[in-house]
Amino acid sequence: MARAFRFVTFLSDYGLEDEFVGVCRGVMKRFAPDVEILDVAHGIPPQDVSAGATVLAQAVKYMPPAVHLAIVDPGVGTPRRAVVIGTAAGSPLVGPDNGLLSLAVEALGGATQAFSITNEDLCLDTPSRTFHGRDIFAPIAARLALGMDPEDVGPAVPVEQLVHLDVPPPKVDDDHIHSRVVQIDHFGNLQLNFGRSELEGIGVLLGDQTEVRIGGRSFTAPYSGAFSEVKKGGLILLEDSHRHLMLAINMGNARATLEARRGDPVIIARIQVRAS
Amino acid sequence: MARAFRFVTFLSDYGLEDEFVGVCRGVMKRFAPDVEILDVAHGIPPQDVSAGATVLAQAVKYMPPAVHLAIVDPGVGTPRRAVVIGTAAGSPLVGPDNGLLSLAVEALGGATQAFSITNEDLCLDTPSRTFHGRDIFAPIAARLALGMDPEDVGPAVPVEQLVHLDVPPPKVDDDHIHSRVVQIDHFGNLQLNFGRSELEGIGVLLGDQTEVRIGGRSFTAPYSGAFSEVKKGGLILLEDSHRHLMLAINMGNARATLEARRGDPVIIARIQVRAS
Amino acid sequence: MARAFRFVTFLSDYGLEDEFVGVCRGVMKRFAPDVEILDVAHGIPPQDVSAGATVLAQAVKYMPPAVHLAIVDPGVGTPRRAVVIGTAAGSPLVGPDNGLLSLAVEALGGATQAFSITNEDLCLDTPSRTFHGRDIFAPIAARLALGMDPEDVGPAVPVEQLVHLDVPPPKVDDDHIHSRVVQIDHFGNLQLNFGRSELEGIGVLLGDQTEVRIGGRSFTAPYSGAFSEVKKGGLILLEDSHRHLMLAINMGNARATLEARRGDPVIIARIQVRAS
Repeated sequence: MARAFRFVTFLSDYGLEDEFVGVCRGVMKRFAPDVEILDVAHGIPPQDVSAGATVLAQAVKYMPPAVHLAIVDPGVGTPRRAVVIGTAAGSPLVGPDNGLLSLAVEALGGATQAFSITNEDLCLDTPSRTFHGRDIFAPIAARLALGMDPEDVGPAVPVEQLVHLDVPPPKVDDDHIHSRVVQIDHFGNLQLNFGRSELEGIGVLLGDQTEVRIGGRSFTAPYSGAFSEVKKGGLILLEDSHRHLMLAINMGNARATLEARRGDPVIIARIQVRAS
Repeated sequence: MARAFRFVTFLSDYGLEDEFVGVCRGVMKRFAPDVEILDVAHGIPPQDVSAGATVLAQAVKYMPPAVHLAIVDPGVGTPRRAVVIGTAAGSPLVGPDNGLLSLAVEALGGATQAFSITNEDLCLDTPSRTFHGRDIFAPIAARLALGMDPEDVGPAVPVEQLVHLDVPPPKVDDDHIHSRVVQIDHFGNLQLNFGRSELEGIGVLLGDQTEVRIGGRSFTAPYSGAFSEVKKGGLILLEDSHRHLMLAINMGNARATLEARRGDPVIIARIQVRAS
Repeated sequence: MARAFRFVTFLSDYGLEDEFVGVCRGVMKRFAPDVEILDVAHGIPPQDVSAGATVLAQAVKYMPPAVHLAIVDPGVGTPRRAVVIGTAAGSPLVGPDNGLLSLAVEALGGATQAFSITNEDLCLDTPSRTFHGRDIFAPIAARLALGMDPEDVGPAVPVEQLVHLDVPPPKVDDDHIHSRVVQIDHFGNLQLNFGRSELEGIGVLLGDQTEVRIGGRSFTAPYSGAFSEVKKGGLILLEDSHRHLMLAINMGNARATLEARRGDPVIIARIQVRAS
């Protein structure tokens, strides 16, 4: 027996309108009535593996020791691999091997082992080809929580063969940063792919104004410490809770106002103060 | 004392913006602190009894033994009956007697007994006429989970008098099937009212192309085994996880693309291969 | 040690698309694995303190004894106070001191004591300035559930100094009431700021017709006891489950049909029956 876990965390793009999430919960509870299910999020945009990976990676660090079940799976029913991945931090992950788990694996100290889920005896009878959450992943997650050895699910996979998502790095020039919108949250805040040090690298300090170029338009935004340091409706650049910079609008929605999408290029530039 | 249940499953059209669901959970926890509440779904379209019935029926088979609480109740406050229904599978259902429970009852082997909820002593004081979930159904569900005998809620109702929803059957002709969209899921997949055998009955086998007529337009779609067997954006006919056929778009949303609604007629036809 | 609580209830404007709610749950479970989290609602409109206050106040009365955690916090990162408030009913509240908790405090019999959260030793290390739910409020709520004395969080605040929301009162004239839409629920029902006694005060009894003026238009609506006492699509005035009057459309959505918003003025007038 491997280590047992009290908790299974659960992330998906299943939404909450249908029975998808509820049925996975039910299947887990049938296998492991005492396991506690902690929902991370089920509103990942449909089939958006990259968005799911980002949200999952930002969550796992704050979770108790758990089996982390994550499902955003546009390749369901194809020969894409389904995996269990062990991590240095101790909590295993379960899901499709399409990159969804890869950023969370990093956040948990890296993969120590991985296994391809092929043992159908551990799954529901005659699994469907469209709902592996219910038929394969939920039973496997529940069994892992009960202490099943991960190697029981199927053959080992070299961890360097796991699918990995690349997060595009920023490009820092003299006085500006070529960035991307890597995530957009519920409030419409735009998370960028750099941190405070890059901003300081182009000479921007807390309280300075910056020029923000996005979607063919240009704006001025201060680098501030809190939403309400600009007036209502004002654009602001501030450090988010994961130590990334984000673009936000105080009491507003930057996604809607800037008509931004995940992946959009953004340039943040220092505003030159002329010697007068 | 009747059998007690560890779980109450809970489905509604209450949404998650307001306190409706939270308050029902709170009321159940006040009556039965140890009961575990398993949410099935709360995003059933408002007042859509038929959608709720379909989702519930697809969920209960995968749930552990439980009291199944379901509320989609456009007739709240009128003399429509509120009921507890016992099933052959053992898990009772609680909700309005408007057909919402009827498909789940079938999925659980049929009704063995039913009782009309009239005993106000079991409910919250002075029930409102607009929120029976809080005032009547949640207390009854919690008490049943604690082992209350279903007959305590009120007079027996002959099970053949329970309101039953009719799911329209498909009409199979020589080389085509007259079908309906019976359900649309979070991903925009359109569930149809027939299975693989009807499709084989018109001579369509896995890999064959079909003609799909919906909303006055005509499309070609292969009968395939997985979403990704067509290219991104391609229409596909495949078996869903409940062994119904569904229309889907790989990495897309068939509801939006086809402008489909629940109940829409769909014709699926074999494409004639000419002898050449 | 103060009193311990089995439950933490949780309300926010965090939505369920991102990890915000899941991460707060995870943090609470790390501090207090045995505490049970009861979600009240997480779909409060972003930054809408008043909507959150209304929903919370309508929920707490139905909850078991609990630590009530509520977060709608447009001033996060500014010197706005974060507080723990003790109530006459016994259940403490945790959240920003921006009025969000004030209506629930009233519903729980009033504040008996309040403390400003300043003790960073009780929070996560180096709290962010944008996500106090995770870094401050969740740890504090979990510790209170474990029996921490509220006064450990920081200095006492005179309860009369807590920020209080004013709910606008109705203005009752001879034969009409000047009212406001104070809340709109998931079904699009418009909750008004008066009850049955005000309606009777202008001479309107159950079954009477009223004139409803909203958004520059005028409608006729009966004062009825249940949604379905008018035909499908009909406007109706009825008592909601909190004993406020509401405007609703049977099997429809009054918000959409009347293009109404929270705060909109509404006049409800008695329809004169002429002596003939």
